[in-house]
Amino acid sequence: MRVVDLIRRKRDAAELLPEEIRFLIDGYTRGDIPDYQMSAWLMAAFLRGLNDAETAALTEAMLYSGKVLDFSDVAGRKVDKHSTGGVGDKTSLIIAPIVAAAGGVRVPMISGRGLGHTGGTLDKLESIPGFSVNLSLGEFRRALETVGCALIGQTAEIAPADKKMYALRDVTGTVENRSLICASIMSKKLAEGIDALVLDVKVGSGAFLKTEADATLLAELMVETGRRMGKQVVALLTDMDQPLGRMAGNAMEVRESIEVLRGAGPADLRELCLVLAAWMLFLGQRVRSVDEGKVLAAELIASGRALEKFREIVRKQGGDARAVDDPKLLPRAGHTFDVVAAADGYIGATQCEQLGVAVVVLGGGREKKEDSIDPAVGLVFQKRNGDAVRRGEPLCTLHYNSDARLEEARRLVESAYSISAQPPAAGRALVGRVIGG
Amino acid sequence: MRVVDLIRRKRDAAELLPEEIRFLIDGYTRGDIPDYQMSAWLMAAFLRGLNDAETAALTEAMLYSGKVLDFSDVAGRKVDKHSTGGVGDKTSLIIAPIVAAAGGVRVPMISGRGLGHTGGTLDKLESIPGFSVNLSLGEFRRALETVGCALIGQTAEIAPADKKMYALRDVTGTVENRSLICASIMSKKLAEGIDALVLDVKVGSGAFLKTEADATLLAELMVETGRRMGKQVVALLTDMDQPLGRMAGNAMEVRESIEVLRGAGPADLRELCLVLAAWMLFLGQRVRSVDEGKVLAAELIASGRALEKFREIVRKQGGDARAVDDPKLLPRAGHTFDVVAAADGYIGATQCEQLGVAVVVLGGGREKKEDSIDPAVGLVFQKRNGDAVRRGEPLCTLHYNSDARLEEARRLVESAYSISAQPPAAGRALVGRVIGG
Repeated sequence: MRVVDLIRRKRDAAELLPEEIRFLIDGYTRGDIPDYQMSAWLMAAFLRGLNDAETAALTEAMLYSGKVLDFSDVAGRKVDKHSTGGVGDKTSLIIAPIVAAAGGVRVPMISGRGLGHTGGTLDKLESIPGFSVNLSLGEFRRALETVGCALIGQTAEIAPADKKMYALRDVTGTVENRSLICASIMSKKLAEGIDALVLDVKVGSGAFLKTEADATLLAELMVETGRRMGKQVVALLTDMDQPLGRMAGNAMEVRESIEVLRGAGPADLRELCLVLAAWMLFLGQRVRSVDEGKVLAAELIASGRALEKFREIVRKQGGDARAVDDPKLLPRAGHTFDVVAAADGYIGATQCEQLGVAVVVLGGGREKKEDSIDPAVGLVFQKRNGDAVRRGEPLCTLHYNSDARLEEARRLVESAYSISAQPPAAGRALVGRVIGG
Repeated sequence: MRVVDLIRRKRDAAELLPEEIRFLIDGYTRGDIPDYQMSAWLMAAFLRGLNDAETAALTEAMLYSGKVLDFSDVAGRKVDKHSTGGVGDKTSLIIAPIVAAAGGVRVPMISGRGLGHTGGTLDKLESIPGFSVNLSLGEFRRALETVGCALIGQTAEIAPADKKMYALRDVTGTVENRSLICASIMSKKLAEGIDALVLDVKVGSGAFLKTEADATLLAELMVETGRRMGKQVVALLTDMDQPLGRMAGNAMEVRESIEVLRGAGPADLRELCLVLAAWMLFLGQRVRSVDEGKVLAAELIASGRALEKFREIVRKQGGDARAVDDPKLLPRAGHTFDVVAAADGYIGATQCEQLGVAVVVLGGGREKKEDSIDPAVGLVFQKRNGDAVRRGEPLCTLHYNSDARLEEARRLVESAYSISAQPPAAGRALVGRVIGG
């Protein structure tokens, strides 16, 4: 088998066999196949497409490029959630403790860093003093057994092919392809040794996928790929036309997550967390219906058990659990600046992705992999789509430490909002289609 | 300007600006842009296509990636010929001396090595004992001034971008694209400091382009690209459904070239050489019409002046000119093997490319860049398409030194010929459409 022939065949829109895809991925992971051949193949796959069988074969090859965790000897169903990423999406921090607090379901969650305009669970957790996301696989297993949940970063052992391919795709314009996205997500998630997976597929101006049609196709592909590999997978299409909750920025999102775990917090964030947790409890066979799961999730918040589980997680992973009860222990930015409405009217469509970029510009995300981040900075959204505003009223508050790029962030935020004289038509429902349920 | 944005835009079928293409090529030539980004861009360009303006910009950027020779102070028009490559195509060895012998026209010819199933002018010339294709640019100029012609290999100074890109395209499945082929050929040829160029675009089973439609499109693109850069370019579509002449293999092709220069040799080879030389003489303003050029070319052969010019070239480039008059001084293979007709009938369509591959298998060409070649081996074609044959009559004679892969070569040759009961329909004319003339 010659790599160049596999590139040529994909270039000419032929279907590759599973063993051919495995040859490619194994060779690339070992370093036998150079980056320049893989990037040509990725571009051919991007433009010619991969069918369902090829996508499943790619996912499987990437999955088995490294260690596949086996938690079959840990009691209870292992269930995880994955989001395709959005602005202000901190649901992992909330639902992991809720589901673990229910007992009987384990949440082995391997998360990522901030990417482009979207934040990353690991960066958020690391804003808690002392919190470590770098557990060994042994520590990961022990946390799962004792706490019922652990949140860690991708280790070198898990899906190394994805790690290498993702870095390559990022610099070769081959990110936004359904099959490549699916294989990247599913290979990592299936390597966690889970029984079931809830996918939160974001759609809208703040998501990677801007249209419902694209999001649906990706969701269907991931559900189908999971099914081919014997896993129960459900995908929820959820709205990302505006930020989720009121805060974006690492420590600020931890603060807002704690609010929700205390029974407060913004309604949209709380509602989505209840729905996602309910699906996890249902797939985890802890409840007999999603509705029942939602009731249980709300009870776990109301009783304080979810918050107590969060403290437990923080302690187990080396963090200062006092920060959960005293948010002043979390990093806080030195300055604030209000972007205000330029006219009376109603908030129209928000350019949500721009708000995410503004967080990055303030230092809360990375433009290059090597960038360090400032956990304290971020945005507080004062208005939601459809809200009435008066001229001069704050739309969004920037929390910053350095004013080096404040002006750039301000302009991004300003132009992200549009104010119309008439109230806009109702937006997308928070939770839309459920696929595979 | 970010490379990844240029990759993404080409991926999305946008037209790139000349300065964007220049940024890409300059950065790649300098080593600032890595292979893996260039290969992703090349695959995007391959699948999305480049329009005429982009192709011209690419050609220009590759041309100016290195030294562009300036022979404006050397008297006479500078004219070259380039062939897209075929089996048995040794016309360069014949027409360079013919045109130089005419006086008043200079032929600065920079040629290539054998590639895939096609032979290379440099490899053929090097089968002449002592012949060097590695002249410095100063020696090249002096040979042009004194002899009127020189045949050398691509130096590091000429179009380095093409050298680097060609090696990359070869291993990333991005060779067979019209715009990329055009830019590769034209950037090298225009760097020779020529005023005009005759292109021999091969079409048929032994050519890179199998159909007349594809060959026409490439020819038109090259003529148009030359025109945009202020050069007079004419492209002739010529037949490659069967080998040109009776011999393929390095030293054997030198022998056959000398035959033509002596006024003998196969009719098809002689005719094509006269037509190509005539166009060069016409574009070189040595004659007032192509017909007049053909008459002059025939006279230069008949008078022995073309052959004398060939001796002069060989001497100037360090070769043993006695080999011109005593072909026994050229390498000769130790053994021969006849592939014979399995039935009575007529030669149908020849799988001409396979015959070229058979030469490579015998050792006369390279499968990898590093391979060394055996100049002595090759094929003698005993029958042409449409010829009547009797069972047992030789179709093709293999000249070989090692029988390591003789069996493989024999099978390739055998299956390249088909014998039909009825005479086949007449094939393509030797010289078809002339584009840009």
